[in-house]
Amino acid sequence: MSTSATGPRGIAVLGSTGSIGKSALRVIARHPELFRVTALTAFGNAETLREQERETNARYAGLVGDHADRADAWGRGAECLVEAATRADVDVVINAVVGAAGLPATLAALRAGKRVALANKESLVMGGELVLEARDRGAGELVPVDSEHSAILQCIGTRPRSEIRRVIITASGGPFREWSADRIANATVDDALKHPTWRMGRKITIDSATLANKALEVIEAHHLFGLPYDRIDVVVHPQSVVHSLVEFDDGSTVAQLGVPSMELPILYALTHPERMSDTAIPRLDPVAASPLTFERVNDALFPMLAIGVAAGARGGAAPAVFNAANEAAVAAFLDGRIRFGAIAAHVSSAVDALGALPFETLADLTAADAAARERVHARCYG
Amino acid sequence: MSTSATGPRGIAVLGSTGSIGKSALRVIARHPELFRVTALTAFGNAETLREQERETNARYAGLVGDHADRADAWGRGAECLVEAATRADVDVVINAVVGAAGLPATLAALRAGKRVALANKESLVMGGELVLEARDRGAGELVPVDSEHSAILQCIGTRPRSEIRRVIITASGGPFREWSADRIANATVDDALKHPTWRMGRKITIDSATLANKALEVIEAHHLFGLPYDRIDVVVHPQSVVHSLVEFDDGSTVAQLGVPSMELPILYALTHPERMSDTAIPRLDPVAASPLTFERVNDALFPMLAIGVAAGARGGAAPAVFNAANEAAVAAFLDGRIRFGAIAAHVSSAVDALGALPFETLADLTAADAAARERVHARCYG
Repeated sequence: MSTSATGPRGIAVLGSTGSIGKSALRVIARHPELFRVTALTAFGNAETLREQERETNARYAGLVGDHADRADAWGRGAECLVEAATRADVDVVINAVVGAAGLPATLAALRAGKRVALANKESLVMGGELVLEARDRGAGELVPVDSEHSAILQCIGTRPRSEIRRVIITASGGPFREWSADRIANATVDDALKHPTWRMGRKITIDSATLANKALEVIEAHHLFGLPYDRIDVVVHPQSVVHSLVEFDDGSTVAQLGVPSMELPILYALTHPERMSDTAIPRLDPVAASPLTFERVNDALFPMLAIGVAAGARGGAAPAVFNAANEAAVAAFLDGRIRFGAIAAHVSSAVDALGALPFETLADLTAADAAARERVHARCYG
Repeated sequence: MSTSATGPRGIAVLGSTGSIGKSALRVIARHPELFRVTALTAFGNAETLREQERETNARYAGLVGDHADRADAWGRGAECLVEAATRADVDVVINAVVGAAGLPATLAALRAGKRVALANKESLVMGGELVLEARDRGAGELVPVDSEHSAILQCIGTRPRSEIRRVIITASGGPFREWSADRIANATVDDALKHPTWRMGRKITIDSATLANKALEVIEAHHLFGLPYDRIDVVVHPQSVVHSLVEFDDGSTVAQLGVPSMELPILYALTHPERMSDTAIPRLDPVAASPLTFERVNDALFPMLAIGVAAGARGGAAPAVFNAANEAAVAAFLDGRIRFGAIAAHVSSAVDALGALPFETLADLTAADAAARERVHARCYG
């Protein structure tokens, strides 16, 4: 990992006006002796980006989308993500971009030897092999920001992967955990947006209701930790206090716990394998969090998990197709075009039809992504 | 830590015929490429010792107590513990001796640069300062075998202590967790021996019922992990699945979980910071273990925890007096001489009366231990 000679490490925050980006800026602001924001990018919120630029004294700001309110000094278009990610004054790239646009920045940062603190799911779900190759070639470092993968990394620390027998990713189970199949099939958008424990964006909240998010996390864990799919389990844990567990080869299980907050995973992604004192992050009181319960996933009620894990295990373009088809189907559901229960059928059909597309290059993956979106869109809006 | 030039590491098992000793021999027998039993000692069970000697091909065997059935070739008397612990062919000493007799062996092994896998509570409770001094002077290593302290060590791994904000030791709560004060005060020996989750010896089971065992564990944790007493908490966790938790300075909490079994802590004490594959140790299924609950300790019902922690914080001879007075009071309870509810009063009175005795040397501590036992015995049997 590259580091500045002395002083605070330079951080690029890609997607700085989103929920993760804002949390990252709060965390960084609390540790000025350790970290300094040197680059910021946003998709379209020019006003917030301007405020952030002023508050952080970032040397670089970029706006990806077209926006009348854009400052002349700013980088513009999708290229600004790669520009920000590869700057010489950047040691760590927090990639909190939403969607496939985050992948080129991850690749470029890793090739440039940066640490990438990854909150962009598409980087590993679409481009897992490419990302690992870029990391290994560039001697960059890949660290998760997601609470589940951060938990796994915190349990592993610097121990070798050979000691891991399996990882157990926890799932809140979403709002439909105790619903009947019929009721789930016809759930409304409002029903699906009522997440029991985490406050997140609309798309991610729907993914939590279908458990598609857990399929994406299993695929990410496969790449991040180099584990075969049969050594990655998912268990429902409605309290979202145990963020994930690792079972080691000697039979011991280690878990990371905390109140739901993205600030800890962000801080840990910056400091791993060290930990830095931060008293603003809420502490867990096990008594207040009690009881902690665990249930098996009901695959019949939540087919998206198995569909996504199978796409991951199939490899090639299949996980990219799964991801893109899911996004298109969720958008159609949010638009009132399809029932909640139809999301899985659209995604499964897309993976079956398009999973064998070429996947050697970024262009291949982008094409597979587009083909999956078009197919699902055509069927939902046609 | 000293190591044999090549081949398996030599292990001395002190207290080999007890519950921990037998578990240790089972664990070692499963890993002949890593470990070899080179020395064994027992207190009085000559027959079992003879079998163990044959099965392990140990080069040294010692019987501490006087016994007609003793083999002529065996070491004898309390000296055999130190002899076994300091042999050149011993790399790791598993000290599972019960009582104050275990302390000289711990000191000698650490001075000789051995790793001591410590299951003998008295070593740290009576002689904490002496033990740490011996460790530091001899470049020996001190690793816990107790499931709670092993859990803490597993959560910490090789991270520096400065990252630890506090440790949270779990307590099953014992059989009287949900009893009224009156009922507890008059509990019978049979009541007190019904431990809900762990099968252990009679003395330790009574200590679990009074929570005196948690006081001893807090004192041990203070010495093992170099933490002040206000950073060591105890929480009741009736399922005994979470063996303890560590809260780090960044607000993250890491816990070690497992089904109740001493084999994992024993194996980890031998391999720390590495882990060795062992498929015989039962795996945890979080769903089968669910729910996991946590409660605060009721200090009014279980005064022994606060009495013991206060003795630890007072330091000097006080923790040794607490430990010895507790043993004498528990023996008197098991003999039907005092009520369950009187244990705490006898121990508290002994700590008040004798806690200021000298504590500079092993002889001082042995004298304090004896004085406490005599005082409680005289009052219970007089």
